[in-house]
Amino acid sequence: MKRSNMPQHHETMNLSQTIGWFREHQKVLVLTHVRPDGDAWGSAVAVRRLMERLGGSATIRLTGWLDPMMRELFPDEPVTFDDPNPPEAEAVVVVDTSAESQLDRDAAFCRSMEDRLLVIDHHAKGDQWTHACVDATLPSTTALLAKLMLEAGLSLDQDLAEPLLLGLATDTGWFRHANADAGAFALAGSLIAAGARRDRLYQATEGAQHPARLSLMATALGRLEWLAEGQVAITGLAHEDFVAAGAGAEVLAGVVNEPLSVRGCGVSLLCTEVTPGLVKVSLRSIPDEHGRPILDVAEFAAQFGGGGHRMAAGCRVPGDLSTAMATIRDALLATIS
Amino acid sequence: MKRSNMPQHHETMNLSQTIGWFREHQKVLVLTHVRPDGDAWGSAVAVRRLMERLGGSATIRLTGWLDPMMRELFPDEPVTFDDPNPPEAEAVVVVDTSAESQLDRDAAFCRSMEDRLLVIDHHAKGDQWTHACVDATLPSTTALLAKLMLEAGLSLDQDLAEPLLLGLATDTGWFRHANADAGAFALAGSLIAAGARRDRLYQATEGAQHPARLSLMATALGRLEWLAEGQVAITGLAHEDFVAAGAGAEVLAGVVNEPLSVRGCGVSLLCTEVTPGLVKVSLRSIPDEHGRPILDVAEFAAQFGGGGHRMAAGCRVPGDLSTAMATIRDALLATIS
Repeated sequence: MKRSNMPQHHETMNLSQTIGWFREHQKVLVLTHVRPDGDAWGSAVAVRRLMERLGGSATIRLTGWLDPMMRELFPDEPVTFDDPNPPEAEAVVVVDTSAESQLDRDAAFCRSMEDRLLVIDHHAKGDQWTHACVDATLPSTTALLAKLMLEAGLSLDQDLAEPLLLGLATDTGWFRHANADAGAFALAGSLIAAGARRDRLYQATEGAQHPARLSLMATALGRLEWLAEGQVAITGLAHEDFVAAGAGAEVLAGVVNEPLSVRGCGVSLLCTEVTPGLVKVSLRSIPDEHGRPILDVAEFAAQFGGGGHRMAAGCRVPGDLSTAMATIRDALLATIS
Repeated sequence: MKRSNMPQHHETMNLSQTIGWFREHQKVLVLTHVRPDGDAWGSAVAVRRLMERLGGSATIRLTGWLDPMMRELFPDEPVTFDDPNPPEAEAVVVVDTSAESQLDRDAAFCRSMEDRLLVIDHHAKGDQWTHACVDATLPSTTALLAKLMLEAGLSLDQDLAEPLLLGLATDTGWFRHANADAGAFALAGSLIAAGARRDRLYQATEGAQHPARLSLMATALGRLEWLAEGQVAITGLAHEDFVAAGAGAEVLAGVVNEPLSVRGCGVSLLCTEVTPGLVKVSLRSIPDEHGRPILDVAEFAAQFGGGGHRMAAGCRVPGDLSTAMATIRDALLATIS
């Protein structure tokens, strides 16, 4: 979420140079950001399979947690977790991030390997690396990997297409977000035609929510307040709500978008007091008919030391839920008026 | 929803014969089913524009209500509503249905015009007509119209592509349903590339919900009951809930799908008592890993005189909400065990 404070990074290698790099390295270690999402996991799996097709081999090492449903999609994929002795590797590929902060404790290791390290990413912001294949116009890192596979002359089959579709589908919010452009749909079409089973990907992501999600969502939506004549929606969940539900805010991914489905609503805020006395605020905004967000939520979040993108940001406000929400409400009304 | 009781209808005209039919007729009347959805309205607009490109002209006549947001997408499209004196037309095109029952009071008029009437539809069930261009393998009627436009040698531009994307996107639940196959994604990609503005279509459909939707949804989700070890979810809204919200069950479209997002849940029922003493039950089912629904909801609904598809059906049960829900719950448990 702090990507807005990062510099722009830029591509140093084109598709053909990147495939050349893959062909030169026989044994690579694949890393990605902490708490890998569908695009990170899909990209890691796709790179490992790509390396194998090119005659090399690769090992994926993840830091921290991987959603068990994501793991089950590719259960035989060799992966190590938090391995204190990283496997011997002659080179490293980092996918779906170029930000040292997102590499956590691997950051120093990566910098030490920089001359033998390749970053493949679709984010506009991040740290600069010597070998970087980056295309920020693409909706997912797997969309970039699809281009690389075609550049390598591979024909896509189910094994290659399925992890690519996972990243594409999850990073576009299952084709609901504005980054689901003509290229995203066309790529999805060819990945499904190549054998990617959309149903199992859909079930493992959109259909695999925690049972507590719906009761917490019911509570949050039941408390929704509308500000600025319905243009802004704000709601919150207190610490005791999470205790009662037996789940944390991680089960609520996407719930902040619900109010944006209402006609006229352009900004939505979800406040969650997972830790007593500290409220996390998620902010979302959608463009008006001129393509501009009603509120630049990254700028708003910056008032509270947070950050993000113009249309998706976050910050933390001390206090219990009602105190923090009052603070946020006042700041919102001052900003909008 | 009664389509399961209808016969299979079949195509009598291929793409090239259908284009020939269009070229032979200079002035046509376009009809569709009552309460047109995105595919019906998109198809009607697309046919009118297609007729114009082929040198003819067409008028759209709708029966009953059209969602104002749908209307606003194509505000200049000439349309009449419930016109007691249907405009003079030498021929009729019926889109997105072939069922007489869905044509309501136009059914007799259509049969009287049958030798000069063309049905264009993607539903597998319906009544048989002399001139029918039908493809039940396609996700929307607009997908069939896209094929017809290509057959006619037209190159797609924004005016043609936008109504086609509206039908495709809404009939696939914005590419979330299982009918969003490779062809659906590929077509969406080419329609967007041709100029269809997905953002305005998304905003006018998914982003144009009634404000009461979220409070009714909160109430319904807050009352969710899980049966059969979490495989079945059931909830309901009483007449007084609708009175308090100042809205009817039409604002809840899609809410019945929410429980299906929870891991392990394969069947969802939403009971709505819009009229006191009569409960409408919406049933949804999703396939298990073998592609089979846990419960054939059409068969279940038939017990109560309802019907539909294996994965989406409806029925009506007399009684107040709690009486009707008890009836449904008992029948469910008897069917599943």
